[in-house]
Amino acid sequence: MTYCIGIMLDKGVIFASDSRTNAGVDDFAKFCKMTVFERTGERVIVLLSSGNLAGTQSVISLLSQRCAEGDAATNVLGAKTMFDVCRLVSDAMRETEQRDAEYLEQSKVPFNASFIVGGQIAGEPVRLFRIYAEGNFIEAGPDTLFLQTGETKYGKPILDRALTHETSLADATKCVLVSFDSTIRSNLSVGMPIDLICYEKDSLTVQWRRRFDEGDPYFTAVSEAWGEGTKQVFSRLPVLRW
Amino acid sequence: MTYCIGIMLDKGVIFASDSRTNAGVDDFAKFCKMTVFERTGERVIVLLSSGNLAGTQSVISLLSQRCAEGDAATNVLGAKTMFDVCRLVSDAMRETEQRDAEYLEQSKVPFNASFIVGGQIAGEPVRLFRIYAEGNFIEAGPDTLFLQTGETKYGKPILDRALTHETSLADATKCVLVSFDSTIRSNLSVGMPIDLICYEKDSLTVQWRRRFDEGDPYFTAVSEAWGEGTKQVFSRLPVLRW
Repeated sequence: MTYCIGIMLDKGVIFASDSRTNAGVDDFAKFCKMTVFERTGERVIVLLSSGNLAGTQSVISLLSQRCAEGDAATNVLGAKTMFDVCRLVSDAMRETEQRDAEYLEQSKVPFNASFIVGGQIAGEPVRLFRIYAEGNFIEAGPDTLFLQTGETKYGKPILDRALTHETSLADATKCVLVSFDSTIRSNLSVGMPIDLICYEKDSLTVQWRRRFDEGDPYFTAVSEAWGEGTKQVFSRLPVLRW
Repeated sequence: MTYCIGIMLDKGVIFASDSRTNAGVDDFAKFCKMTVFERTGERVIVLLSSGNLAGTQSVISLLSQRCAEGDAATNVLGAKTMFDVCRLVSDAMRETEQRDAEYLEQSKVPFNASFIVGGQIAGEPVRLFRIYAEGNFIEAGPDTLFLQTGETKYGKPILDRALTHETSLADATKCVLVSFDSTIRSNLSVGMPIDLICYEKDSLTVQWRRRFDEGDPYFTAVSEAWGEGTKQVFSRLPVLRW
């Protein structure tokens, strides 16, 4: 499985992804699920991949190759808007699906790549999308604070509780790490390292990117402080009078 | 969907269930999913139902009818051990499945009743089981603190964090309510009222049973104190230095 999240805030957008892939419990590995297409001062595009690794890697390779080739019509570094970027990602997904689906069907494996795509192109506001395996997609609006893929449930209550549009990037970063910590503790299919990007609105560059590996001192400190703090909150909750 | 949980502690066992059933978003209703078979001073048996309502109600009706009829071989009030109780529940499930499965298949609805069963029969320790839809079952051991059914993921991190065998019944009760609050906030298919039983080891009677309906003052107080408390914990978490 996977856990990926994109969070839209007034100050910018946060992206995070885990790194575990697995085809059964005896076949798991580490792969970075975060891809950045950047032209400093002009655009920052972040993709978070979920689903079948062969599928998502093929999509990323197609997009990267086309950036290298520089063909304006298929190149996310040349696309005019984030909406056009999503259409290019979607096209690459459908191309991969058309190539592979028939063969996957023989093993009853559905093509299931999906993406969170977000960022900013100069002249546009920050935007955040989720592209489904079918290649259609939704965009986060003012009522949608975050989009998740994969093992989304364990880490959702804390996001629902703690986040608003006004939350600072620093506070939302803590919140994302607690959300990942909760998920990793409860589900073996999600694992470290966690890749995190905190993109500040209108900066048009990736200033803050960090990878948290097993034993990362900051991640450990947050996890312990969260555990200790919630224990104290519990002890102060009112006792039920039956 | 549903959210049910049974928690084994040194001091006793806690049972809780939500009350929402749904066959699609436009067809939802309230049904109590908690059933108690009790003979004060001799046995307390609690069943929490998940899955297809027609199936779980049929199982409960079969068990109740057989208690009324008093046939020793099929009567949970006469069973010698909690293991035997689970076999009787399992038998009633298989009987229902045999009667209905063929007809359900025509509508591609699988028979999917399942149960958490726990409690105590004089002479035995407290025991806790989960019976799968197939009628086979597992028992919680010293390494398993709780068994859940239904929408289990949203409310799991807080249980993983806060509970140990030594947790008091009072503290575990708070924890269960926070777990339900998290689930209900994140998932429409789980809804109030929450039925809760806190069974004290060797009491052989249900001393503490409570239903929390929408707007229950204690539940609201816990929910608000938890929200406020976790916000404060957040604000005190260390800030990431990039």
